Amino acid sequence: MADWLTSLQTKTPQEGFELAITLARKGVAYTQTSAEMREQLRDNYANNADSLTMASQVVAVHFQTVAAANNYWKE
Amino acid sequence: MADWLTSLQTKTPQEGFELAITLARKGVAYTQTSAEMREQLRDNYANNADSLTMASQVVAVHFQTVAAANNYWKE
Amino acid sequence: MADWLTSLQTKTPQEGFELAITLARKGVAYTQTSAEMREQLRDNYANNADSLTMASQVVAVHFQTVAAANNYWKE
Amino acid sequence: MADWLTSLQTKTPQEGFELAITLARKGVAYTQTSAEMREQLRDNYANNADSLTMASQVVAVHFQTVAAANNYWKE
Amino acid sequence: MADWLTSLQTKTPQEGFELAITLARKGVAYTQTSAEMREQLRDNYANNADSLTMASQVVAVHFQTVAAANNYWKE
Amino acid sequence: MADWLTSLQTKTPQEGFELAITLARKGVAYTQTSAEMREQLRDNYANNADSLTMASQVVAVHFQTVAAANNYWKE
Repeated sequence: MADWLTSLQTKTPQEGFELAITLARKGVAYTQTSAEMREQLRDNYANNADSLTMASQVVAVHFQTVAAANNYWKE
Repeated sequence: MADWLTSLQTKTPQEGFELAITLARKGVAYTQTSAEMREQLRDNYANNADSLTMASQVVAVHFQTVAAANNYWKE
Repeated sequence: MADWLTSLQTKTPQEGFELAITLARKGVAYTQTSAEMREQLRDNYANNADSLTMASQVVAVHFQTVAAANNYWKE
Repeated sequence: MADWLTSLQTKTPQEGFELAITLARKGVAYTQTSAEMREQLRDNYANNADSLTMASQVVAVHFQTVAAANNYWKE
Repeated sequence: MADWLTSLQTKTPQEGFELAITLARKGVAYTQTSAEMREQLRDNYANNADSLTMASQVVAVHFQTVAAANNYWKE
Repeated sequence: MADWLTSLQTKTPQEGFELAITLARKGVAYTQTSAEMREQLRDNYANNADSLTMASQVVAVHFQTVAAANNYWKE
């Protein structure tokens, strides 16, 4: 797979959160490599509350990692 | 998405907990971008015990992050 | 919501565990704001093994946070 | 509830693991306070692979906490 | 239960991973104490993708603990 | 099992992420030792959104470990 992750450092917490979302999606993309199929599946789970909560959980775990990597963006 | 997360620092643990709730909901909102649809889904899962527990779990993971970012609000 | 969380410090590990239970329940209460409805739902999930295990998992995550906040109550 | 958790310190990792099991069960017991009902439920989930895996997950989270509290029993 | 866990220290990351697997299985064995029953259940969940993923998740949590205990086997 | 994990150190975060994927799959492989069966199961879960999210969650937990082992690849 082409380079997509060269650093965990981000300028702001929000960028860190968005990186966490990318990481969560990449965790899926390495298993289901077809972008078309992922798009189809997203149509389903985006309308299911529990599926969305599960996806949000993965983001939360990755956000822990990214936040620690950035020392929580403390000034 | 407009700026919504500029710091993980909060004055009190309770504000930190409420930030964790925001983070959990944002994890959903990035996938299901329609506020109307999220409102519909909430009507369902708010009446399902397991769905609520799963949502509470996501909050718990984010609260770990926020609490660490604030050094646990130790005096 | 009125003040309910002013500190993560507790005198004993057991009080810390009980705070973790409070945190888990608050994670639910912010989504399902009706105490009456939460009471109804509890009657169901309290008799379902998997629901109880899921609830215990949320407590475990919060207990990690509270224990770290108290430096594990080491003497 | 009577005192049941006065310290997270244990002499060995195995005692720490067994404390983690106690913590997982207590997370259930605070919600389902009837020991008789818990016994009934155990008969069911002890024969369901996924239920056992979920229970093992809760133990794993608590074991992280207990292990950290004991500095991993490093000599 | 006889002694089965005297240290979290391992020589290599792979041995640490295998210890994590042992810990995950012990989390089950303390609840379902019949080895025969566990063997039966394994036949089922070993052929179910989601069951295997859930089991892998428990291993992941324990591997975090073991890896931290070994300071990530850094040289 | 032959040597497959000799270090948690990676040169880049992306290599770390890919190691996390390997760890998640190994967590399955130790339980379901037949590669042929794992391949069959993958065909199913790769087309199920929730299964993919669960798999991504395991990757997220392992990525926390690998990232910590590499001090988050900070320069």
